[in-house]
Amino acid sequence: MNPYEFVETHRDAFLDELKEFLRIPSISTLSEHKPDIRRAADWLRQHFEQIGLTRTEIIESAGNPFVYAEWLGAGPDAPTVLVYGHYDVQPADDPDGQWKTDPFEPVVKDGSLYARGATDDKGQTFTQMKAVHGLLAAGQMPVNIKFIIEGEEESGSDHIHGFVRENPDLLKTDAVIVSDTSILSLDQPSIVTGLRGMTYLEIEVQGPDHDLHSGMYGGVVQNPAQALVHILAAMHDDQGHILVPGFYDRVRVLSDAERTELAKVPFSLERLKDETGLDTPWGEPEYQMHERLGIRPTLEINGLVSGWTGEGAKTVLPAKALAKVSCRLVPDQDPKEIESLVRQYVTSITPPAITSTVRRLHDGMWAVVDPDSPYMRAAVRAYEFGFGAPPVFMREGGSIPIVGTFQKVLDAPVILMGFGLPDDNLHAPNEKFSLECFYRGMKTAIKFYQEVGAL
Amino acid sequence: MNPYEFVETHRDAFLDELKEFLRIPSISTLSEHKPDIRRAADWLRQHFEQIGLTRTEIIESAGNPFVYAEWLGAGPDAPTVLVYGHYDVQPADDPDGQWKTDPFEPVVKDGSLYARGATDDKGQTFTQMKAVHGLLAAGQMPVNIKFIIEGEEESGSDHIHGFVRENPDLLKTDAVIVSDTSILSLDQPSIVTGLRGMTYLEIEVQGPDHDLHSGMYGGVVQNPAQALVHILAAMHDDQGHILVPGFYDRVRVLSDAERTELAKVPFSLERLKDETGLDTPWGEPEYQMHERLGIRPTLEINGLVSGWTGEGAKTVLPAKALAKVSCRLVPDQDPKEIESLVRQYVTSITPPAITSTVRRLHDGMWAVVDPDSPYMRAAVRAYEFGFGAPPVFMREGGSIPIVGTFQKVLDAPVILMGFGLPDDNLHAPNEKFSLECFYRGMKTAIKFYQEVGAL
Repeated sequence: MNPYEFVETHRDAFLDELKEFLRIPSISTLSEHKPDIRRAADWLRQHFEQIGLTRTEIIESAGNPFVYAEWLGAGPDAPTVLVYGHYDVQPADDPDGQWKTDPFEPVVKDGSLYARGATDDKGQTFTQMKAVHGLLAAGQMPVNIKFIIEGEEESGSDHIHGFVRENPDLLKTDAVIVSDTSILSLDQPSIVTGLRGMTYLEIEVQGPDHDLHSGMYGGVVQNPAQALVHILAAMHDDQGHILVPGFYDRVRVLSDAERTELAKVPFSLERLKDETGLDTPWGEPEYQMHERLGIRPTLEINGLVSGWTGEGAKTVLPAKALAKVSCRLVPDQDPKEIESLVRQYVTSITPPAITSTVRRLHDGMWAVVDPDSPYMRAAVRAYEFGFGAPPVFMREGGSIPIVGTFQKVLDAPVILMGFGLPDDNLHAPNEKFSLECFYRGMKTAIKFYQEVGAL
Repeated sequence: MNPYEFVETHRDAFLDELKEFLRIPSISTLSEHKPDIRRAADWLRQHFEQIGLTRTEIIESAGNPFVYAEWLGAGPDAPTVLVYGHYDVQPADDPDGQWKTDPFEPVVKDGSLYARGATDDKGQTFTQMKAVHGLLAAGQMPVNIKFIIEGEEESGSDHIHGFVRENPDLLKTDAVIVSDTSILSLDQPSIVTGLRGMTYLEIEVQGPDHDLHSGMYGGVVQNPAQALVHILAAMHDDQGHILVPGFYDRVRVLSDAERTELAKVPFSLERLKDETGLDTPWGEPEYQMHERLGIRPTLEINGLVSGWTGEGAKTVLPAKALAKVSCRLVPDQDPKEIESLVRQYVTSITPPAITSTVRRLHDGMWAVVDPDSPYMRAAVRAYEFGFGAPPVFMREGGSIPIVGTFQKVLDAPVILMGFGLPDDNLHAPNEKFSLECFYRGMKTAIKFYQEVGAL
């Protein structure tokens, strides 16, 4: 049985295994889920052992553990590929009852598997694992393989960067596969060649030393919630330009040729409507939508909270107000410099009777990958084989800061071999993973290893 | 034993009874506390019976029940006084652990009783009840007395207005006592002669039809939290003037003489510092602080919520954002007109791809009371007797809309006989009621009934 036959005949069993993995609510942002993080790591390590990797380890860190696994049976002359993924997931809070099924009880519906982490990133990590499983089971694995799977990607990847820097020998490789992105559609696969960086901040403003009665003090005490909305409103003009002084200074200006190349993968109004329900796009009018997502930075409010947020009315003049704000960054912006610019700006526009604090929650570098390495060409052939059409290259709006660290420390090309779809609802209710993507993904990954083996 | 001796010798027993009343978490804003609302009403009715009122009733309404009690033993020729209070309390949510003791386990510390509702309004209602108890126990009650105690004051008093309009005979009275305000200090009693009205609104904005990944859509989708902060920031200029067109049109301009009279009770910077921890006041610079509280309207953000508000980071572009906003109103503003002006303004400044909704949670009229009725003069003498100093008149920033309804329907003077202190933390953590206010309050109320009996 060849590896393709192996993965095809084991589809049902694989799906049951993936469901098991998805049932573990390994939410890294919430400390109460620490035991689930541990369970997910244990499950992974055990599964690596089960499918034939010869060295499998839980590696402790100051944060959540890494899972490392390797099979070096192709010998010292064969190329080595390192696969990165993450076993932690986003929260699945659901105050408005938007999840149609339990986020941690996976359900197959209309050809997709619904669960938190289905596509981001348990499903995609699992796809890579099962491709390797197929090759090992068939006795046809042509390359050495290493996996490094982390458990903090959704909370800032605080420890993976240091781990990579401190363990270049363990992770030594000829190419890195990161399977945590999406393709355009089942008919039009794509490979991401650029990712945005990130600076995630918390802005807290404090006024009075405790919550006050809005009747007894309204008119003499500056309301911190009002101060916060004034600060946040000063972040953008009406057209969506960011007003933080210096914010755009280091943004690389693309040539007309580069813009023309990028325009081959536009972001259509139809797609906007389908995926968001909106007819009207937003943002810097002098750029196209795909440019605003791929090559322009943003500053977004991710969360707001102050005072009374429950049912009904409470006439409180709140003591403080808090916003979660993240900037998506592009070449050649520096996350720490952007943090400092935002901090200075917030300080400069904070009203007199208000104290403001800007805290960094995490940050990460943008990345641009080489579209022309032999490994990338192998990936292009693999997608064509797996999906029946050659992939297009595109820049994506999301952030995977580890890409830049891999490039720098391991000096190896990184391939963003993603199998998600744009409507997979990652970070949102009803996250899903298309079963077709799962099956074609395994086929693509198997083909990739065969192509790399033949390089 | 005269009534003063009676209440003095029963201080400990009275305190225990009040603690019992305060232990019932009768929060009217949260529907899960419906059973506690019922328990508080039952407790009250039973207590009225216990202290000698001859007719005691729970009166059902479409909302929370009223408690009615009367003693008409002074005979048809004696004057009648109606006492209004409320048995419901504000929420006591405590995300930051600001409450030093359990809000529903009353504790005496440094001469004050700490609990949610201690001053607002269980403690003050109870003070009036125990003054009547003293007079009845001593066989010296010189006036007929009626009590109407509601259970929806903290959630908008939705049903008391209709009840008063439909029951003018039941509530027929020569004067109304409302015991739900504060005095300036133990040494300087005061009587409130003006209260602000209120329009409490919820502003909700919606963008995409579900929460999105901020990397995948940030730059092409308008962020509803950003839209909301732009809308809210447009409500005030930097000096605190409200920018809603027409908002100030009906605000009564006070004469210089009236402003001079009001200036006798200024709001000092020391008081601001003591009560809020702030050195810097805020608000319309052309008005004094006591004017900004007493005779100028406000628009305050009472609550803000959008996206991720938990621990850590979540890179969500939220589908919606919500603000709770309340306006304090002054003569001759109309709550419904203000609602309509805010609604029009919000609509006019809502950006294209965003839907905004303005919902009214509740509203109520401002009130100004006659400082010169015989009943007010009786109250002045009673305060002088109870507190050892004549009270000053002042306008307050809070709202008690029922005052206007009593004036209109019952055609009787209303006396705001309050016994709170400015630092009682009402609507805030660590609410308290000074025991000295409790004792002097009972003495003042007993004296008031004696003075009214002698009119």
